[in-house]
Amino acid sequence: MNPTELLASRESPVQEKYEAVRRATQQICEPLSAEDCVIQSMPDVSPTRWHLAHTTWFFETFLLAEQPGYEAFDPSYEYLFNSYYNAVGKPFPRSRRGLLSRPGLAEIWEYRQYVDQKVAALLADRSSDREVQRIVELGLQHEQQHQELILTDIKHVLSCHPGFPCYRAAGALPAKQTVETSWLDFEEDLSWIGHEGDHFAFDNEKPRHRVFVEAFQLASHPVTNGAYREFIEDGGYQRPELWLSLGWQTICDHHWQAPLYWLRRDDRWQQFTLAGLSELRDEQPVCHVSYFEADAYARWAGARLPTEAEWEIAAADRSVEGNFWETLVSQDAALHPGGSAAGNLSLHRLFGDVWEWTASPYTPYPGYQPPQGALGEYNGKFMCNQYVLRGGSCATSQTHIRPTYRNFFPPEARWQFSGFRLAR
Amino acid sequence: MNPTELLASRESPVQEKYEAVRRATQQICEPLSAEDCVIQSMPDVSPTRWHLAHTTWFFETFLLAEQPGYEAFDPSYEYLFNSYYNAVGKPFPRSRRGLLSRPGLAEIWEYRQYVDQKVAALLADRSSDREVQRIVELGLQHEQQHQELILTDIKHVLSCHPGFPCYRAAGALPAKQTVETSWLDFEEDLSWIGHEGDHFAFDNEKPRHRVFVEAFQLASHPVTNGAYREFIEDGGYQRPELWLSLGWQTICDHHWQAPLYWLRRDDRWQQFTLAGLSELRDEQPVCHVSYFEADAYARWAGARLPTEAEWEIAAADRSVEGNFWETLVSQDAALHPGGSAAGNLSLHRLFGDVWEWTASPYTPYPGYQPPQGALGEYNGKFMCNQYVLRGGSCATSQTHIRPTYRNFFPPEARWQFSGFRLAR
Amino acid sequence: MNPTELLASRESPVQEKYEAVRRATQQICEPLSAEDCVIQSMPDVSPTRWHLAHTTWFFETFLLAEQPGYEAFDPSYEYLFNSYYNAVGKPFPRSRRGLLSRPGLAEIWEYRQYVDQKVAALLADRSSDREVQRIVELGLQHEQQHQELILTDIKHVLSCHPGFPCYRAAGALPAKQTVETSWLDFEEDLSWIGHEGDHFAFDNEKPRHRVFVEAFQLASHPVTNGAYREFIEDGGYQRPELWLSLGWQTICDHHWQAPLYWLRRDDRWQQFTLAGLSELRDEQPVCHVSYFEADAYARWAGARLPTEAEWEIAAADRSVEGNFWETLVSQDAALHPGGSAAGNLSLHRLFGDVWEWTASPYTPYPGYQPPQGALGEYNGKFMCNQYVLRGGSCATSQTHIRPTYRNFFPPEARWQFSGFRLAR
Amino acid sequence: MNPTELLASRESPVQEKYEAVRRATQQICEPLSAEDCVIQSMPDVSPTRWHLAHTTWFFETFLLAEQPGYEAFDPSYEYLFNSYYNAVGKPFPRSRRGLLSRPGLAEIWEYRQYVDQKVAALLADRSSDREVQRIVELGLQHEQQHQELILTDIKHVLSCHPGFPCYRAAGALPAKQTVETSWLDFEEDLSWIGHEGDHFAFDNEKPRHRVFVEAFQLASHPVTNGAYREFIEDGGYQRPELWLSLGWQTICDHHWQAPLYWLRRDDRWQQFTLAGLSELRDEQPVCHVSYFEADAYARWAGARLPTEAEWEIAAADRSVEGNFWETLVSQDAALHPGGSAAGNLSLHRLFGDVWEWTASPYTPYPGYQPPQGALGEYNGKFMCNQYVLRGGSCATSQTHIRPTYRNFFPPEARWQFSGFRLAR
Repeated sequence: MNPTELLASRESPVQEKYEAVRRATQQICEPLSAEDCVIQSMPDVSPTRWHLAHTTWFFETFLLAEQPGYEAFDPSYEYLFNSYYNAVGKPFPRSRRGLLSRPGLAEIWEYRQYVDQKVAALLADRSSDREVQRIVELGLQHEQQHQELILTDIKHVLSCHPGFPCYRAAGALPAKQTVETSWLDFEEDLSWIGHEGDHFAFDNEKPRHRVFVEAFQLASHPVTNGAYREFIEDGGYQRPELWLSLGWQTICDHHWQAPLYWLRRDDRWQQFTLAGLSELRDEQPVCHVSYFEADAYARWAGARLPTEAEWEIAAADRSVEGNFWETLVSQDAALHPGGSAAGNLSLHRLFGDVWEWTASPYTPYPGYQPPQGALGEYNGKFMCNQYVLRGGSCATSQTHIRPTYRNFFPPEARWQFSGFRLAR
Repeated sequence: MNPTELLASRESPVQEKYEAVRRATQQICEPLSAEDCVIQSMPDVSPTRWHLAHTTWFFETFLLAEQPGYEAFDPSYEYLFNSYYNAVGKPFPRSRRGLLSRPGLAEIWEYRQYVDQKVAALLADRSSDREVQRIVELGLQHEQQHQELILTDIKHVLSCHPGFPCYRAAGALPAKQTVETSWLDFEEDLSWIGHEGDHFAFDNEKPRHRVFVEAFQLASHPVTNGAYREFIEDGGYQRPELWLSLGWQTICDHHWQAPLYWLRRDDRWQQFTLAGLSELRDEQPVCHVSYFEADAYARWAGARLPTEAEWEIAAADRSVEGNFWETLVSQDAALHPGGSAAGNLSLHRLFGDVWEWTASPYTPYPGYQPPQGALGEYNGKFMCNQYVLRGGSCATSQTHIRPTYRNFFPPEARWQFSGFRLAR
Repeated sequence: MNPTELLASRESPVQEKYEAVRRATQQICEPLSAEDCVIQSMPDVSPTRWHLAHTTWFFETFLLAEQPGYEAFDPSYEYLFNSYYNAVGKPFPRSRRGLLSRPGLAEIWEYRQYVDQKVAALLADRSSDREVQRIVELGLQHEQQHQELILTDIKHVLSCHPGFPCYRAAGALPAKQTVETSWLDFEEDLSWIGHEGDHFAFDNEKPRHRVFVEAFQLASHPVTNGAYREFIEDGGYQRPELWLSLGWQTICDHHWQAPLYWLRRDDRWQQFTLAGLSELRDEQPVCHVSYFEADAYARWAGARLPTEAEWEIAAADRSVEGNFWETLVSQDAALHPGGSAAGNLSLHRLFGDVWEWTASPYTPYPGYQPPQGALGEYNGKFMCNQYVLRGGSCATSQTHIRPTYRNFFPPEARWQFSGFRLAR
Repeated sequence: MNPTELLASRESPVQEKYEAVRRATQQICEPLSAEDCVIQSMPDVSPTRWHLAHTTWFFETFLLAEQPGYEAFDPSYEYLFNSYYNAVGKPFPRSRRGLLSRPGLAEIWEYRQYVDQKVAALLADRSSDREVQRIVELGLQHEQQHQELILTDIKHVLSCHPGFPCYRAAGALPAKQTVETSWLDFEEDLSWIGHEGDHFAFDNEKPRHRVFVEAFQLASHPVTNGAYREFIEDGGYQRPELWLSLGWQTICDHHWQAPLYWLRRDDRWQQFTLAGLSELRDEQPVCHVSYFEADAYARWAGARLPTEAEWEIAAADRSVEGNFWETLVSQDAALHPGGSAAGNLSLHRLFGDVWEWTASPYTPYPGYQPPQGALGEYNGKFMCNQYVLRGGSCATSQTHIRPTYRNFFPPEARWQFSGFRLAR
């Protein structure tokens, strides 16, 4: 079994899953220097070093600290590497993570080893304990989320350097493709959405419940760079009537004229990718746009964004296939959305490539209950002024995504691999 | 017919409605000095003077300017008193309205007279023209919204003065009452919500559509000051686990420890009202709370806020009765929520007294279409990072409210008469 | 005796001086509406209303409050109209003066009358009391400073209105003149500067002391608009090498490209004056420039600004003649610097027209002692990060200025009538 | 000859001086990890990495780039490591130095080696060329300034970590001493100050010129921690009458209650030093105070700060002895001001230990001329809103200081080793 199969399989032993996920984190960090791992380029970004320690802290705090006789690797880490769990204690302020001179990267790798050994010992003993399994599973899902953040955060860090350094050189791009978007029809229905069953899902995907959805159409492909360029060239960023009021204010305040990481040089569009600057490819899905830009584009195009219920209804029966980070980290990858256009019963790139903004504010499902205790802070307290994204991106692990998976970001966020698909 | 009956009646001639609404605006401003009408105490607040001119500008721009031969009272007003209609032209910046030395208050009253005469002449001629009726009706509804804002804005202005001056002295308070909250049951159902029919409603109340709502309970009364004090005394503002993450950040940043306008003096709670400082009355509905506070209280109480669909289902068949500004402006009113507890088939204070925060982000209804042209900017472009409030307040005209009416404010807003009711 | 002679004469009875100064304040406010008097257009600006009350508060606090049996007009004014005297009590925050809805303008005029009557009664009784004389004199000098601020502040308020309203219509401009600047020579010397004698001077002009000054030359005229235009046209605002580091940062941050109140319209320069927009006159002294701009111009011109010692040495023996507010308020005045070019032994416009920035940071003279008590806060505590200006402006009373007079503002301040003269 | 003698001697060959200074920079960085060298903890602070590159850039830009055939180590460094020399080109923004992921520390050491070799080759050839000597000398003085900044900046970086890590462990503290301050008398005189002669001095120390100074007294010692504690305990930070207006605003805005790096723990004062937290020693000179605090203390003590002329007159004939970084970097040093109390004809600690704030704003001396070209930006453009400090600190090289030496910082700066001495 390769790691992807291993993680995807619900039968895999939890120990092997643990090792596979933790090893993947290491693999992601290989191209980075100690200096790269220190920098916090904006408050939303965390230093790589911090991600490495925080994901480890998660296992230490929620799994090991409960065990009799467990001795912390360093008691000060409880404070330093807590992200936002107030029930654990007051966390070190997020915006100051880039000011932490210590511990150094080497010491953080030691910390990871220390915790890995303790987890291995625990699992050797109690791998069939359901509560242990539950926390390890949650910790691994959590670490997978941070794997994606390591990539999006370091991309932002590198983009602040006027020389646009690479994370890693890219492999060859796929041959150019022509994208022809068509519309798929869905009937009005009282449908069930949300997660049910005993395999892993986050609390915010539950409970499964009914929603009434009127008939709608969904585009076969996400919006492409080429289509988005037409919007720009049609004065999209200069026409207030296309924008939400808050969106217009945002693009004016920040002087946005194109997606994040797009650069106009010598009358041509370039984009900054994890492999450095490259020419913009028209057929690729547009990426690094905010909700505001997705919404304005849709209005310009005479369409709208799908709700998350519509998206999930369309995705419900399809298998999770697409361009995920398993591709991205392989030697010949483009390190960017837009590998070969994965299709799935005529809905293309539904999973992977780019997260798709939906029209749905991130709210609790009817009857939603966060877990008791500190882990109840994982999702619920963020249900305000954010929008749901669906489907995963080229920086998400394929083993991490489900049709019911709900990601969420504020409408102005652009540093994730975020794109969108139209509905009407 | 008294003005309330006049406005409520769908048969009233549009001329009489116009005069009644415009006169009501004057009545609201009577207690204010020229100096009061200049001040903008925060960016969300507009000077009274500006409200008086802007509501007049609305009729001038959308009704009169179209008429052949119409001569503007002052061409510079198009720019000065446009609020946010980009289709009309770039508006004068909102945050600088308090810096406008001219026109003076007297000149603005002249402006109102000028426009009133022109509108009267137009209506004498064309009062049966459906498009004219539509725009006059919209302008009057618009003016009623600004009547409420004049009151909430001047309250904020006056509150900035360390001597807490009155807008007007209050009449006698009603006798103390005991509030006993009970729960009302509603069955799961696929229900219709939203506006239908040919009497006036805003675009955001349409189209009428189906929603599936599971069984729920709704509290018989809004949460009272007394109940809210218990939350405070139980450390509500010191316990992060009760708050949305953004809410916790907000109360920390602003050092909020109680609702807006509550003051702790000599170990007793007072509140600033339009009639100056007064003792807090436990049985009154709590008021001037943000969505964050409403949400935290609900969590503390083991309940939640209702969705707007739940609220509307409960309100659908009830008549619009309660403490509205028609009471507030009368000589013996308390100028504050909490007159006699209007009940309506065992749901008390559902209309009037305080706007009720719902758990629903302000989003377009399925199939929502804003009108063409500048008036399309009225509602649609604000559908982001705001929450829906229902039911009207003591500063809303009774003739302005419907069960389908959707008001909306950002979750941190507190200067409206905003309270809440629990669901579960 | 006209008021100017009256005030200038050291023999005038203090009662008459008091009345003359207080009346002058009224005269300055005549063109202003109640609304004009409310607005605070930036933190440095105070509403006219506030100036009227604060100057009155000064007499009440430092003169009347000490008298047995004095009853305050309104006890809350002690807090509201204290500017910065911590020894009197915590003052109402400066930046919030524009939020004070009460007292209204009419009430403030009553307050002035009340205090005027009390002061008159006191003076009738004790006008020969030296301490009383000292405080009245200080209060009048203080009021004269605020008379100038009323004019410069209301100019700023009016400038925020896109229609550029007038304070008052101007009289005819003087005929165009040609300005030919020459250099006057001064020998190196150990000179005395600072105030001595028993007529009034502020504490910061004392003690008289020796300074060694090397030989220098001083320009016969302040720099003119025409000369300053050449600096602009030579790229002055685009060449960092001409600027202090802090100056460069300031002009970049604020996008300054010309003096305050200059507007480029249809390829011509206009300036906003108290009489509205007018064409820029090349021969007038340049005005509303910051220290940074004065300093950069001097560097561009191969010269420098004079120190305050140099300025005072040059001014020491000359009589105080020039264009002061006594001219400005007369019916045929231009309401702007640059009436007929007052000369005084070949140094022109040394007094009046524009305050002249010097190269001297505002520091205490050797042996400086602020007075005991609250009045010690008048000057001393501002001796940091400010520069000295000399000579008075067209908005200063002629009776207020002496060769030893030290005005001071931060280097970025531009809303005073501030210009400069070169030295080398 | 040891390095100190070598550098101090005007006869030393310039090659040897070059090597000694560059080696000293390396020595200072030895205790630091690659991670430490990345962090910029506030805009005033630069990452160590940046200091290492910038000092090298200085030689490359002003010495090597002029040489025919010189090939830059990396052409992008011209932009990245320019501090503020606009004449060289637009510099990379200061506040973003901590966002530069590349070059890594190892590459910067290579850069230093590369430049060192080129300089050595140049000096082998042209060491007697006066212009070459002049620039090398300036570059070395510049590097010595950055050596001090590396220490003060990394101290600030480390202080941001809640665990207060050490730069390096300290040696034993000297035995406690009793400090008895007395006053030294100086007569009134017309004195010469400023630099003259052909050994090195910065442009801002010239020209030598006359100043008239009245009789004054100077304290024998800088103010100590013990004396400063009395000020704090007497409510110094709560009494506005002791403070400059800007100072009071600063301490209120930042909630300052003690010098930077002082911590109150368990009712005892501790201080953060380069060797971590330690008990406050009463007899040490107070350190890390702003000008505002020095000025307020002096007012409280009934004294004042000396002017820079007074300081220089007192220091003129004394030899430069004291606790400098030559002590600080030695193995048994305290890494903090207050080694054995160096005295020099009864003025103690005049040189070394702490920079002493003077009452003098940083202004050009009469007749001051900055050099032509980019090097003219070294000092002159900062002569605004800063105060002069004199005498060097424990982080300054002994070979860097002269009695005429003028250091300067804004009045709110505290992260240098800044203290003060009283005058009257």
